[in-house]
Amino acid sequence: MNLKIAVLAGDGIGPEVTNEALNVLNAVAKHGGHTFTYEDLRIGGVAIDADGSPLPEATLAATLKCDAALLGAVGHNKFNSYPPSQRPEAGLLKIRAELGGYANLRPSVAYKPLADNSPLRAEVTEGTDILFVRELLGGLYFGEPRWWDKEKKLAHNTMVYSEAEVARVAKIAFELAQKRRKKVTSVDKANVLEVSQLWRAVVSEVAKNYPDVTLEHQLVDSMAMHLMNTPRSFDVVLTENLFGDILSDECGVITGSLGMLPSATLGGKVNLYEPVHGSAPDIAGKGIANPLGAILTAAMVLRHSAGLEKEAAAVEAAVQEVLTAGYRTADIARGDYAGQKKVSTGEMSKAVLDAIKL
Amino acid sequence: MNLKIAVLAGDGIGPEVTNEALNVLNAVAKHGGHTFTYEDLRIGGVAIDADGSPLPEATLAATLKCDAALLGAVGHNKFNSYPPSQRPEAGLLKIRAELGGYANLRPSVAYKPLADNSPLRAEVTEGTDILFVRELLGGLYFGEPRWWDKEKKLAHNTMVYSEAEVARVAKIAFELAQKRRKKVTSVDKANVLEVSQLWRAVVSEVAKNYPDVTLEHQLVDSMAMHLMNTPRSFDVVLTENLFGDILSDECGVITGSLGMLPSATLGGKVNLYEPVHGSAPDIAGKGIANPLGAILTAAMVLRHSAGLEKEAAAVEAAVQEVLTAGYRTADIARGDYAGQKKVSTGEMSKAVLDAIKL
Ligand SMILES: CC(C)[C@H](C(=O)O)[C@@H](O)C(=O)O
Ligand SMILES: CC(C)[C@H](C(=O)O)[C@@H](O)C(=O)O
Repeated sequence: MNLKIAVLAGDGIGPEVTNEALNVLNAVAKHGGHTFTYEDLRIGGVAIDADGSPLPEATLAATLKCDAALLGAVGHNKFNSYPPSQRPEAGLLKIRAELGGYANLRPSVAYKPLADNSPLRAEVTEGTDILFVRELLGGLYFGEPRWWDKEKKLAHNTMVYSEAEVARVAKIAFELAQKRRKKVTSVDKANVLEVSQLWRAVVSEVAKNYPDVTLEHQLVDSMAMHLMNTPRSFDVVLTENLFGDILSDECGVITGSLGMLPSATLGGKVNLYEPVHGSAPDIAGKGIANPLGAILTAAMVLRHSAGLEKEAAAVEAAVQEVLTAGYRTADIARGDYAGQKKVSTGEMSKAVLDAIKL
Repeated sequence: MNLKIAVLAGDGIGPEVTNEALNVLNAVAKHGGHTFTYEDLRIGGVAIDADGSPLPEATLAATLKCDAALLGAVGHNKFNSYPPSQRPEAGLLKIRAELGGYANLRPSVAYKPLADNSPLRAEVTEGTDILFVRELLGGLYFGEPRWWDKEKKLAHNTMVYSEAEVARVAKIAFELAQKRRKKVTSVDKANVLEVSQLWRAVVSEVAKNYPDVTLEHQLVDSMAMHLMNTPRSFDVVLTENLFGDILSDECGVITGSLGMLPSATLGGKVNLYEPVHGSAPDIAGKGIANPLGAILTAAMVLRHSAGLEKEAAAVEAAVQEVLTAGYRTADIARGDYAGQKKVSTGEMSKAVLDAIKL
C-alpha cells in the first residue's frame, strides 16, 4: 500500500523521537513492500523562528495533501511571554482544527515490566488498559468569545458544545468499546455546567444505538479519584477537550512515564498522530529521550491510516518485548533495578526494530 | 468566647457526621467555658422537599446573622433529572456565593497509619502535607452567560476572572504559605486560555509582595500528574475554581479516603465549613459514615472562626491518635490489617472525644 505522511517533527525532542518512529515505519514498509513517503514540514517554535508563524501556510497546505500527519512535539519556554495566538502551541491547535479530527485516542496501559515505575501500587495498576477518547475540537480550547482585556482587567473564555459535536465523538467511543470490553465511562460536570448537561443527554441518546455497550456517567472530580483508585475498572473513557487533557495526563502515572504514551486523532480530513509527551527542551539533542511514545504512535498510524493491524500489533508486541528484556531510557530507568539495560534513544529504537516480528 | 454557628446538615450522611462535629465543638466549649450556639437550618435536597427550594430564604437570612456556617453535605440522585438551578447543588453554590467566601482551603495530608490505604505507594505519599487554596466564587461555576438551548442544540458556559478576584485569593495563598513551607504552586492552562494568562500574570504580581515565598507555575494537565508522582514536593497549591475541584478530589487518594477531608472557605461575610465528601445517600442512616472529615472541619472552625488554635490542634492530634490506635470506619478499614478496630460513626467520634487533650 502507499501512504504519504506529513512529518511535523517540531521542537525539542520532537525531531529525535520522530526519527525513530520513521525507522519503524520504514522497516514495516520494506518488509511488506509498502511505499511510505514523507514530507518534512515545520510547525511550532522552529516555524516561528524560520517562518514567523507557528503554523506556516505552506505546512498546512502540504499536510492537507497527505494521507496522515505525524507530529513530534511543540513548545519552548523561550516563547512563554508570547500571547497564546503567537506561541508554538497555537500551531498545534490550528493544525488540529484545520485537519478536522475530533476524536483523540489516548491509550493508557500498565506495562507489567514497568509496574514498579508507577507511584501507584503494582496491584492497583495491574492489567489496566484504558482508552481515552478525548473530544479535540470543542470546549474552552476553541470557544469564542475569548479575550483578556487589560484595561477592563478581565479575561474571558467560552466553553461551548453543540449536540452534533458531542454525538460524533460519542459514536466513535461506542464503536471502539464494541471492539474492546464494551464499557464507556462518560465524564462531565453535569451537577454544575449546562454544557455538561447537554453532553450527558447526547451521550445517553447515542448509547441507545449500542445496546451491547454499558454506559456510565462520572463527574470529573470523582473521576480524577476513581482513575487512581480503580484504574482497572475502566475501558473506554469519553471526555470533552479540557477534562480529557487533564485526566489523560493524570493517567500517565499508570504507565509510569509520559514518554511511553501515543495518541491518534481521527475523524477529520487527515488523521493526526502525536505522542502525548511534550517537547522537553531541557533534554533535547542529548540522545536520551524515550522514543517509545513516538514508536507506539507509529503503530497507531499503521492501524488507523494504513489498515495494517497485524503490523501495528507486531510493533506493540516488540515494545513489550524490549521492556521485558530490561531496556530502559532514562525516564523509565530505576535505581533499584539491577536487571535493566540503560540505553539511549537510538539504542532503544534499535532494540525495538530487532524485536519486531513481521 | 461566643460563637453562633449555622448548622446546615443537608442530605444523606450530612446530619450524622455533622452531629459528631458538634459533639467535638461542645467538648471544646465546655472545657474552655466558651458559648457555642447552633441554629439548625435546611439546605439541599431536604430543603427542596420541605420548602421547595435548595436554599430557602429563611436559611440564607439566618445564616447571614451567624458567625460561621457548618455544612454537612448536599445531593441526592433522586434529583438527577432536575435542571442545575433546581438541584440540591444549586443550594450549595448559592450559599457559597451569598456568604462571599472566595478562598476554599482544602488540606490534603498523608496520615501515617493510613499509608497502606492509598493506591499510591507509602514511600510516595509519606510526609505529604498539601494545602489547596481553591478560588470558589469565579470561573465556570458562576460565569454568565450560561445556557443550554434545546432548539439550537447548543450549550454554553463562561469562564471569567477579573484581576481583583485573582489577586484576593492569591494573597490568601501567599499568607498561608508564609506560615508553612513558603512555597506556592499556581495552577493554570496559560498555554491555551486567556483567563489563565491573566491568572498567571496577577499571581506573579502578587508574589512580589512575598519575597520569602517561592512561586512556581504549573499547567493543570502536568499538575494532575506531578501531584501523584511527587506529592511531597508541594506546599500551598493555588487554583481557579474548577481546576481546584478536580485536583483536590484527585488528592483524596493521598489520604486514602474522601471521608477524611475537611475544608474551610474564608474571605466572605460568614466563613463556611464543609467536609469534602458528598452526601453518600447509599450509606446514609446506617451509622457507618466516617465522621473524621466533619470533625477535622470542626477543627477548622476552631482555628479560623473561634481563634482557638491550640484547641484546633488538639482535635487534629486526637484524630491522629485514634488512627494510630487502629480505629477504622468502613471506608478506611482494610481486609489485610489485623490490628484494626472496626467502628461505627458514633464509636469513632467517641474515640476522638476521649483522645482530645485540652
Ligand atoms: C500543548 C497543549 C496545547 C496540548 C493540549 O492541551 O491539548 C497538550 O497538553 C496535549 O494534551 O496534547
Ligand atoms: C457538589 C459540587 C457542586 C461541589 C463543587 O463542584 O464545588 C463539590 O464537588 C465540591 O468540590 O465541593
